[in-house]
Parts: sequence; C-alpha cells; structure tokens
Amino acid sequence: MNSSPSHPVSVPAWHARHTGPAALAASDFHLVETPLARPADGEVLILTRWISLDPYLSFPMIGSGSDGGSWAVAGRTIGEVMESRDAAVPVGATVLVTAGWQPWNVVPADQCQVLAVDPRWPVTVAFGVLGASGLTAWVGMTLGDPQPGETVMVSAATGPVGSVAGQIAKSRGCRVIGIAGGPEKCALAVARYGFDLCLDHRQPDLASRLSTAAPEGIGMLFENVGAPSLDPALTAMALDSRVILCGLAGHYSNSDPIALANFRLILKKHVTIRPFAWMDHAELYPAGRAWLTESLAAGRLAYEETITEGLAAAPESYIRMLAGKGSGKHLIHLP
Amino acid sequence: MNSSPSHPVSVPAWHARHTGPAALAASDFHLVETPLARPADGEVLILTRWISLDPYLSFPMIGSGSDGGSWAVAGRTIGEVMESRDAAVPVGATVLVTAGWQPWNVVPADQCQVLAVDPRWPVTVAFGVLGASGLTAWVGMTLGDPQPGETVMVSAATGPVGSVAGQIAKSRGCRVIGIAGGPEKCALAVARYGFDLCLDHRQPDLASRLSTAAPEGIGMLFENVGAPSLDPALTAMALDSRVILCGLAGHYSNSDPIALANFRLILKKHVTIRPFAWMDHAELYPAGRAWLTESLAAGRLAYEETITEGLAAAPESYIRMLAGKGSGKHLIHLP
Repeated sequence: MNSSPSHPVSVPAWHARHTGPAALAASDFHLVETPLARPADGEVLILTRWISLDPYLSFPMIGSGSDGGSWAVAGRTIGEVMESRDAAVPVGATVLVTAGWQPWNVVPADQCQVLAVDPRWPVTVAFGVLGASGLTAWVGMTLGDPQPGETVMVSAATGPVGSVAGQIAKSRGCRVIGIAGGPEKCALAVARYGFDLCLDHRQPDLASRLSTAAPEGIGMLFENVGAPSLDPALTAMALDSRVILCGLAGHYSNSDPIALANFRLILKKHVTIRPFAWMDHAELYPAGRAWLTESLAAGRLAYEETITEGLAAAPESYIRMLAGKGSGKHLIHLP
Repeated sequence: MNSSPSHPVSVPAWHARHTGPAALAASDFHLVETPLARPADGEVLILTRWISLDPYLSFPMIGSGSDGGSWAVAGRTIGEVMESRDAAVPVGATVLVTAGWQPWNVVPADQCQVLAVDPRWPVTVAFGVLGASGLTAWVGMTLGDPQPGETVMVSAATGPVGSVAGQIAKSRGCRVIGIAGGPEKCALAVARYGFDLCLDHRQPDLASRLSTAAPEGIGMLFENVGAPSLDPALTAMALDSRVILCGLAGHYSNSDPIALANFRLILKKHVTIRPFAWMDHAELYPAGRAWLTESLAAGRLAYEETITEGLAAAPESYIRMLAGKGSGKHLIHLP
C-alpha cells in the first residue's frame, strides 16, 4: 500500500455545496483531501492537464437537483495516462474523460476517449471546436436546418457553441445576427466569427433593436442563454419560426423561475421550441466532424480559448464563465 | 333613408377598453350606440341569435395589442339573414360569421358560412364540437399523434376543446389524465368525457400528484391554459415528450409575464413545445369533420354548452368563462 512519487495517496478535490435561492458563487466550492486508490483491473490513473468549464456542470447544484448536500465536482478533463490496468488505454496516452476536479483521477478505462494528438492544433480542441462544442453547434444547426437567405439569430455569439453555430449558419448562406454582452464581444462576433451584426444585450431596448435588424423576422433562433435573449427575440421572430434550444446558461447559477413577458407570442406566431442534446444525435457526428475538421484545417473556422492556470482558480473561473466574462472555451490548465 | 321595423338605424354594440396591468374585467366593456347602414351590394343584414365566447377574443385587449384605445368587440356569431344583397347567402339562411357583439350586423356575404341545419343536434355545434373547438382538438391531436398506451395529459379538460381532445385520445387507446378546476369538473371529466382520471389544479401539490398519476411519464401534453398546468406538468413529462400548445387561456385576462419554475426541464428532458392554430391545417379538416360527425351521430362524443340569455350579460359571462366558471362551450343567446 505504499505510494510511488507518481501516485499520491490522496489529492485535493473540489467539492461544491449550494443551498437557498442565492446565485451560485465561488464560495460554494471547497477543497476536500480525498484518498486516491491504486487502479484496479480495467482502470487507469490519469494526471489531469486540462479541465473544461461547461455551463451544464451546475445542473446538480441548482433547483430540484440540490438537496443541500455536498458532492464532488466532476467535468470533462484531458489528461495523461500514468498507470494502466487496461491494454486499450496505455501509459502515455492522452485521454478525454469525465472526472473529478482534482490533479489525479483513477477512472474506468472504458470511459476514456483516447485522443489522436494532431500537431495542427492544440489538444484542447477536443473539448471545443472539434469536440462537444462544435458537435453541439452542428447538431443544433442540422436540426434547425436554416435555409440560404433566412435570418438566423444566435445568443452567446462568442461562446464556444454560439461562435461555431454562427459560422455554420454563415456557411449555409444565412443572414446571422448575434447577441453578446458588451461592445468588445459584439465586435469580436463580427470580426472573428463573421456574424453579419451582433447586438449588445446590455444596452436597452434589445427587442426593438432586433425587430429593426430583422425586418423580415427571425426564422430560426439558436438559443444558448434563456430569457435575456429569448424574451426579446420573440418580438422579432417570424411566423412559424423555430427556436432550437441548446442551453439556458443564463439560468444555471440559480433556481429562480424563468419568466417570459412575450411567452404569448410563442402561441400567436407558432414558434416551435425544440430542445436537443448533442449526445442524442450520434447519427449526425460523422458529417459534423468532417465539416468541422475540414473547415479548421482550411483556416475557415475560428475559435478562441480562455485559459486560467491552476486548479485553485477553477471555481472562480467557472463563476466568471457563467457570468459571461471572457469568451470562447473556458479551460483550466494544470502544470 | 327610412328604417324598416326589421332594420333599426342604430344598435347597441359592446366596445372594450383595457389599460394597465389589472386583469380584464367586465367593467372594461361598455355599450356604444352604433349606426347600422343598409347592406350594400355583396352584403347581408344578420339578426344575431348566438354569440360564441372564446378565449382568443381578449388577444387585442392585452399586452402589446392594447394601445389604451377602445374598440368594437367582434367574435363568432350565428344569426339569421334578414336582408341580402348577395344571391349566395339568401334571406332566411342561418350563417356563422365573425361580427360585432350587437343584435344586428351588416357583413360581407362572402365572410358568412351558411350552415346546413341538422335536426339531430342544435345549430350551436357549429361553434363547438362540429366547429372550431372540435377541429382544434382534432388538429392538435393529429399533430401530437399520441400512440396506444401512451399517457396523454389535457388541461382545461372540461372545456370545449379539452373535452374533445380527451375523447380523441381515448379513442386512440391512450391513458388520458385531465386537469380541471374543482371537484365537480374533475368528476365530469371522468364520467362524461371518459378521462381515466382528472386532477384538480386548485388542490396543492399538482406536480407530485401528476408524477404519481403518470409513473411512466407523460408522453404528450395538450395544453390549453399555460403556467398553472404546464409548470407542474413539466416535472411529470417523459424524456423526449411533446407539448402541443393550443391555448394560454390562463393568461389572456392580463399581460403579466408567464413564469415557469420548471422551464429548465424543457431542456433537460427535451420537451418539444409545438404551438399550432387550427386554421393553418385545413388539410386535416375532412378527416376531422368525418370523425367528429360520425362520433356525435353514434352517441360516442359528449359535449356541453353553458348558455347565458341576453346581450347585456355578454361581458360578465366572458370574464366568468376566462376564470374557468361553467364548462363546455360558453354561448350568449339572443331572443
């Protein structure tokens, strides 16, 4: 039962606890020194290199999922296999796996996706533009099926999903209106991601600005945020239009009811609301991966990463990401 | 320019005016003595016999449709043609037409639907079970396409649309849960309309009662009301289920935002929200009319009318209908 230098007997792991109506805060997280077992048969020991900060991580922290208890935070990580009890995932492999926010993890080998490291781009694109973010955008845009010339709106336009969604819509000949927070992100959406225009949701009268920007009506809304963009959008949606509901990131840090002043317009204009999860549409992955990889290789697909150094900063970076600070894919890098 | 006894020079007409955040009230209506022209070429003079009280009438009274001005209330009426300047709609015909809440109307003949009076049932079924209500239920159920054995929920279960929707779902072999206000309506839903069970939304804990009543999850919700039924239903909806959004009658008497505590479950469970308007689906009418007429003739299709005598009572009856008082199709009868 001795530990080797490469295998500590315990590690600091981020836990979280959230109760009451207040918004999720960095102070809801705390480090718990946690025993690390030796890998058993079929398991591997992973040294964490990257942690992906994803809005969905707060699902268990809010609303009915919260029982006031504390739990170990787990999310997508990329790491290096340091010890293996499964031949399919050898020592030295770089893997993507859902695991604890901690410097080492022991996980079942069959939950690891071994990454083929490509020298053309950083390994972290497996989280983002060539991973879940890119495929989420692809699946949502495929389900929404916007037509050439149609006006498409994308909220969280500079986020890892929204930025790809906008670029897919542009590649299909749509007119694409982004929504983002602040003049810098709006400028970024147009300059880097090719949105036709991008409106700042922090300025007043978003509804009337959207109606002016889309006189023919918005045919499809790719929604990542929730009420702050969906509610004003409803005034500008076309008859028989659709909302592809990808995320509600504006509502993950609390469990308040979601109120829409314009909900009646969903009925009046026959706006279909279609939620989806990318994991349910594996049939769309091959075409999505092909388009994303080709576009990235050809320099036609832009992306951005916001990287924070060190595990200690993970909770604060996570809360900043939920609050819309920084842009693109938010990552924690471990030395 | 003389008037004949059958053609007054002016008539009392209900107008409405609604401003501010308060709920619509009977006191928002007032009678305006209104000139009645002689029918011109292509017009007919109608003596009003029946007025249909429909939730959608308050659309222009609320929210963005309200500019604080006053307007003549118009809705569906059935009346008798007393004078005609169009051969297609002769004197003596019984017609259904959208017209003012007033004892006489002059309307374009081509807006009149001449009714074939059938001695097997009252002419008012043209408003309800054989008209818009029945076809609305048919169209919504056809779009929702519930499968045998599936659990279907219907709100406003004893309303003119909900009661038919429930009976259609039963005819397809579904398990059908109704929602209604008060023990009498709940008993009626089961006894008269054949719902498997009906839950009272006025009692507490509707969400947990729904979850208990539908342990396998609700596959389809036929929604007529809005948040009071949709919000608790979301806790009991199955994965990948659908809401066929037919009406928001719980929200027509005010312009308050519609708040859903469980909105996040729309995303989490992939609950598609599909609004529709029956007028957009004329392709479904022939099959719907055939089923409704056959079922009614065979005594397999139950319906109910709540009839109030006299034009003077129209506003108060309308507000009572919006508040869920009475059941079935709400009508004003003019002597």
